Amino acid sequence: MKIHVLLSPLNADELYFTGKTVVVVDVLRATTTIITALKNGAKKITPVESVDFAVKVSGGISGGHTLLAGERNTLMVEGFALGNSPLEFTEEAVKDKSIILFTTNGSKAIVRAKFAENLLIASFNNVSAIANRLAELGNDVEILCAGSNGMFCVEDTVCAGWIISAIQEKTEDVELSDSAKASLVLKKHFGKRILKMLKDSEHGQLLIGNGFEEDLKVAAEVDSTDLVPVYVQGEIIAPDFSGSKKSKPEKK
Amino acid sequence: MKIHVLLSPLNADELYFTGKTVVVVDVLRATTTIITALKNGAKKITPVESVDFAVKVSGGISGGHTLLAGERNTLMVEGFALGNSPLEFTEEAVKDKSIILFTTNGSKAIVRAKFAENLLIASFNNVSAIANRLAELGNDVEILCAGSNGMFCVEDTVCAGWIISAIQEKTEDVELSDSAKASLVLKKHFGKRILKMLKDSEHGQLLIGNGFEEDLKVAAEVDSTDLVPVYVQGEIIAPDFSGSKKSKPEKK
Repeated sequence: MKIHVLLSPLNADELYFTGKTVVVVDVLRATTTIITALKNGAKKITPVESVDFAVKVSGGISGGHTLLAGERNTLMVEGFALGNSPLEFTEEAVKDKSIILFTTNGSKAIVRAKFAENLLIASFNNVSAIANRLAELGNDVEILCAGSNGMFCVEDTVCAGWIISAIQEKTEDVELSDSAKASLVLKKHFGKRILKMLKDSEHGQLLIGNGFEEDLKVAAEVDSTDLVPVYVQGEIIAPDFSGSKKSKPEKK
Repeated sequence: MKIHVLLSPLNADELYFTGKTVVVVDVLRATTTIITALKNGAKKITPVESVDFAVKVSGGISGGHTLLAGERNTLMVEGFALGNSPLEFTEEAVKDKSIILFTTNGSKAIVRAKFAENLLIASFNNVSAIANRLAELGNDVEILCAGSNGMFCVEDTVCAGWIISAIQEKTEDVELSDSAKASLVLKKHFGKRILKMLKDSEHGQLLIGNGFEEDLKVAAEVDSTDLVPVYVQGEIIAPDFSGSKKSKPEKK
């Protein structure tokens, strides 16, 4: 199994991901938020590339059961029901709801990888479950870090390193690219104190400045869930993979 | 002084670099080769973005004193005088010559940063001289890693970390971005055995496979020269900065 990490979505175009097994990571905060929403009973999440498209898509879906969510510069988009803080995505707010999500980095990264054969959504909250699923699939893996406005960000790369480390505990048959090796080194260095790393990070600093320090605590929780959200035909759902070892999300 | 590292030229567009102090690193092999050429007496080097443009530019410049150099997939472009191996750029081959250089990653990265106020060319061969120059300039610094086909490569990032580490020895007034901190961590991990790191790297493996193992030894030489090549109005030259502390390359 070859593992490669893309440190920014700009490293490759959409066609690069065609037919591959891809994991998208946006620790602060999109993938943490998506996982929280699904854990709290959201039916599905539709990630979109633009606010305009979010509004357009929402028009076609039955009103009360669909929520518009997302942020610009970390703050809730005006007129949306929810921002991008995992703390807003409570059971009360999202249970049985469909959510349309626009974020600066994460939702765009997911859409960029839309031609993947398997597209999994990861954060520190589900690293072990993700690693288990990837080991079950047995395919080569591309871990796509959402980064920050096209640039590297430390927290996504450390999370990628964590996933690689967890895969290595399951199988010896792992071949690492330069970026995967570097992610492992960064995981070993920064991974011992995740919350501190998040607080010191550029994006963490921005969030703290905008009043979202509590979000960092949620993002720092390792393995708080077994959910493995997948993107299938435009929507993120959380299928039950506990049955078959080689099961795939059903395509509609 | 703020220091930031771009781990791929694709992380930002051309305008991002406008007015900034930028250092381009392509250890394997463009910046190593450029430094070698200038050390061996080449008059100037014109980096270009395409083979077509290399041929076009060469037409307008006096024949015998201009050499076309460059590679595609590590191998010399057909019809060119030189490839991209530093070992080809001997004094005999390049003294007093102008060189037009096309390479897969490095020459393109330099051209991408063309709107920089100061554009310096670095490899392990001149890390200390580069750090000295940057400390003299005192500006914020963007280190642009040429990477590999838009992706991260370990050797450029470790070299970036080395430059940062050398700047930190000169001045305490240094603020590091996430990517700069990560580059420092990778420098500490991989920098102890540079030649081994190069041999193990993806690009190093490719070069070894294509018969360029000796190039890695040249690329691994730390501080083999004091040259600080700069890109000014389309050409890379090696000015003498030994005079004024705040001197700038003269614009023609």
